[in-house]
Amino acid sequence: MRFRRPHLLGLAGLDAGEIGDLLDRAESSWEAAGTAGWRAKRTPAIARLSVVNLILEPSTRTRCSFEIAEERLGAEHLSVGNEGLSLIKGETLSDTGRTLQAMGVNVFVVRHPEVGAPARLADELPGAHVVNAGDGTGEHPTQGLLDLLVMRRRWGELEGRRIVIVGDVLHSRVARSAVHGFHALGGSATLCGPRHLLPEAVGWPGATVVEDLDGALEDADAVMTLRIQRERFVAGEAVPDRAAYRQKFGLTRERVERLREDTLVLHPGPFNRDVEIDGEVIDSGRTEVWTQVRAGVAVRMAVLSVLAEADPAPEKGP
Amino acid sequence: MRFRRPHLLGLAGLDAGEIGDLLDRAESSWEAAGTAGWRAKRTPAIARLSVVNLILEPSTRTRCSFEIAEERLGAEHLSVGNEGLSLIKGETLSDTGRTLQAMGVNVFVVRHPEVGAPARLADELPGAHVVNAGDGTGEHPTQGLLDLLVMRRRWGELEGRRIVIVGDVLHSRVARSAVHGFHALGGSATLCGPRHLLPEAVGWPGATVVEDLDGALEDADAVMTLRIQRERFVAGEAVPDRAAYRQKFGLTRERVERLREDTLVLHPGPFNRDVEIDGEVIDSGRTEVWTQVRAGVAVRMAVLSVLAEADPAPEKGP
Amino acid sequence: MRFRRPHLLGLAGLDAGEIGDLLDRAESSWEAAGTAGWRAKRTPAIARLSVVNLILEPSTRTRCSFEIAEERLGAEHLSVGNEGLSLIKGETLSDTGRTLQAMGVNVFVVRHPEVGAPARLADELPGAHVVNAGDGTGEHPTQGLLDLLVMRRRWGELEGRRIVIVGDVLHSRVARSAVHGFHALGGSATLCGPRHLLPEAVGWPGATVVEDLDGALEDADAVMTLRIQRERFVAGEAVPDRAAYRQKFGLTRERVERLREDTLVLHPGPFNRDVEIDGEVIDSGRTEVWTQVRAGVAVRMAVLSVLAEADPAPEKGP
Repeated sequence: MRFRRPHLLGLAGLDAGEIGDLLDRAESSWEAAGTAGWRAKRTPAIARLSVVNLILEPSTRTRCSFEIAEERLGAEHLSVGNEGLSLIKGETLSDTGRTLQAMGVNVFVVRHPEVGAPARLADELPGAHVVNAGDGTGEHPTQGLLDLLVMRRRWGELEGRRIVIVGDVLHSRVARSAVHGFHALGGSATLCGPRHLLPEAVGWPGATVVEDLDGALEDADAVMTLRIQRERFVAGEAVPDRAAYRQKFGLTRERVERLREDTLVLHPGPFNRDVEIDGEVIDSGRTEVWTQVRAGVAVRMAVLSVLAEADPAPEKGP
Repeated sequence: MRFRRPHLLGLAGLDAGEIGDLLDRAESSWEAAGTAGWRAKRTPAIARLSVVNLILEPSTRTRCSFEIAEERLGAEHLSVGNEGLSLIKGETLSDTGRTLQAMGVNVFVVRHPEVGAPARLADELPGAHVVNAGDGTGEHPTQGLLDLLVMRRRWGELEGRRIVIVGDVLHSRVARSAVHGFHALGGSATLCGPRHLLPEAVGWPGATVVEDLDGALEDADAVMTLRIQRERFVAGEAVPDRAAYRQKFGLTRERVERLREDTLVLHPGPFNRDVEIDGEVIDSGRTEVWTQVRAGVAVRMAVLSVLAEADPAPEKGP
Repeated sequence: MRFRRPHLLGLAGLDAGEIGDLLDRAESSWEAAGTAGWRAKRTPAIARLSVVNLILEPSTRTRCSFEIAEERLGAEHLSVGNEGLSLIKGETLSDTGRTLQAMGVNVFVVRHPEVGAPARLADELPGAHVVNAGDGTGEHPTQGLLDLLVMRRRWGELEGRRIVIVGDVLHSRVARSAVHGFHALGGSATLCGPRHLLPEAVGWPGATVVEDLDGALEDADAVMTLRIQRERFVAGEAVPDRAAYRQKFGLTRERVERLREDTLVLHPGPFNRDVEIDGEVIDSGRTEVWTQVRAGVAVRMAVLSVLAEADPAPEKGP
């Protein structure tokens, strides 16, 4: 089945056909995604887009990636940055959205600290397209897709593959989107991390939850380590905790050397070098981290192109 | 008379012909204003513009509206945002302007917390065009024009029409520009609000000042409610005051239902739902608020186009 | 010798041929630099650029100047502003650079509070071009080039010319770049200012260090006064210190009137009027300050064009 939805709010609920369709499109944007100054031929569908990046939570990386994707596609776009959140104080996100919509904006790329904010906006803006660019601890579907793209480029397909996700899985929208995507494509996830940062397996389809990283890594097809948010380390305990974390859950050089040679190593960035992943590992070229970034531009170009061709959400009656 | 001034600093002093000229031009940008990805044919006049948006006071809405107008016209443009005000600390606005002018910038869209700042800049930058995008409690002429445009589209002309403006009129640049515009086109304004937030009628041409909203609304052709700035409510008294304000001056559902069916309901946004206007009223489709936003893009495209064709302010002798 | 380096990190070490090459190119961008809406024919070399302005220290002026240069050249570009520095907290500049590089970015314009940050980035990003847009108290080579351009346009060449630089020379990257540039082109600098803000002559090639401004100005070919950073005045002592500074080191009207008629007066901006330079002097038209700004756009267009044609730094082996 092709992806024909008006919005991309999450990977939960998408089937293999829809995800495959998005990945195929991303594949065809691979060259554009890594090439300076690329200018796509502006298709009639793209010429009918007006994209706003509503980046209401700090994010240089995701913002730049979307802006480059929009620029290379030739889509009209503008960004409302961090200052936005305070500027629109007292105005609901929905009213901000309707205001922009009245200016002709029809695609809303939304990064927001609250789970479900992009979905609510989608519900409140008939006729618009909404792309979730990260909602609190909810989903981050374009990140999930870029992880899938990197794997599919290496393996052809994900059927039967096992991916270990290590870190603060409980609060990770990156992990959540990835798990839904693996599951839809026939892979499975092993979730690993400190007990208090692990979720119940319920709600994480096809996932197994373990605490022992070294056991989990045996014969893994890929390992994705998550960024540990420094805010989660208690002041005063920061240094010992970080060292202890690295020892138990970090992708140290030693751990990476014990991996199967063809096991993929992923990290969504930005990195805390020598905490969740050794700087040496990143610099060795053993990881997919830069390929992931390029895949991110390809996926964002693909999503915008597909939405441009989709029918928007129907206008609702009064 | 056609609009042939080098600047748009306010609606005070413009005659009906000049305002009508700007509204005619805005009318011809109506489709562009609401259409995603619109690209005007870049005229030679537009190709000679370089616009800077100097947004030295928080404003997502006005900034986005100008940026979209500039983008759709195909004008060179860049924005100096909120961070600007601190960045240029110690530099006068005039020196900032001359610096940008030396880079070829010739249109200055200025939002500034001080009354008269855009006019002073216009005076200090011979050869440039200045657009006042809101100066303290001074004027906000593009907002005034968009209100006029919405009314003219509905009524054909404003001659003999009576518009009620309710709220903190005293401090409102939106109200001031609107009153000057109505007066020039033959309409009149009834200003209404709490006594301490009402101006003397002097200086508000053709305006009547009243405290009783319900009386004022009888047989009004339009009502424009102003945003109540939360900062004006004293801490601790916030909730009772807001409820009391809504009861006396809010456009509640009940009040709106008592209006003549063809009375226009306007609000410049952003909204404090259930304070100066009921959320229900906005959501009911009974208001012109989204039409106003679209009109704002049309007006800004028109103003930039007209200035592009105008002779700039003459260079002064030494 | 033509300029064929992959980066522009400073003027130290460049020879007269390389600097002359850059100035020749800037000369050919002179009209574009001062003309609103200029669009260069997008050359194949420019079409292969993707520029990021990493402006990690407040700078409206330098950011706008680079953005306008990029826009007029038709180069793909995006800016990461001030908010960036906090956003990428915990990420190294090198990882930020590699991330952007994975998106196809190949030119990094870097303003950074630390000396050497652009050079380190250049070292860590094989295949990229880095332009130092000001690094702490290090260099600001495009500013140095624009000063040279203004002088060369007036004098034809700099051979034998003597330029007085006055102010906080010790901490000035503007002064450092200028001195290296003068020296390479056969001119020399006299450095002047309060004793504690003067450097040793060592490391400032061809420069003489003096404390008496009026003596230094006798028969000078040019005088460049530096911005005094207000932060350097102790609170409480601010006013008397500023007046005293102006008396000893300010370019007052009286001092400027005593200059030779053809002595050039420069200031990098922004100005503290009536501290290091009298407002009256700026407004009299006696200075080159606005010409410097225009030269800044010309130089930035030139540098980006030349780098676009250069071979990038070779990829390093593992």
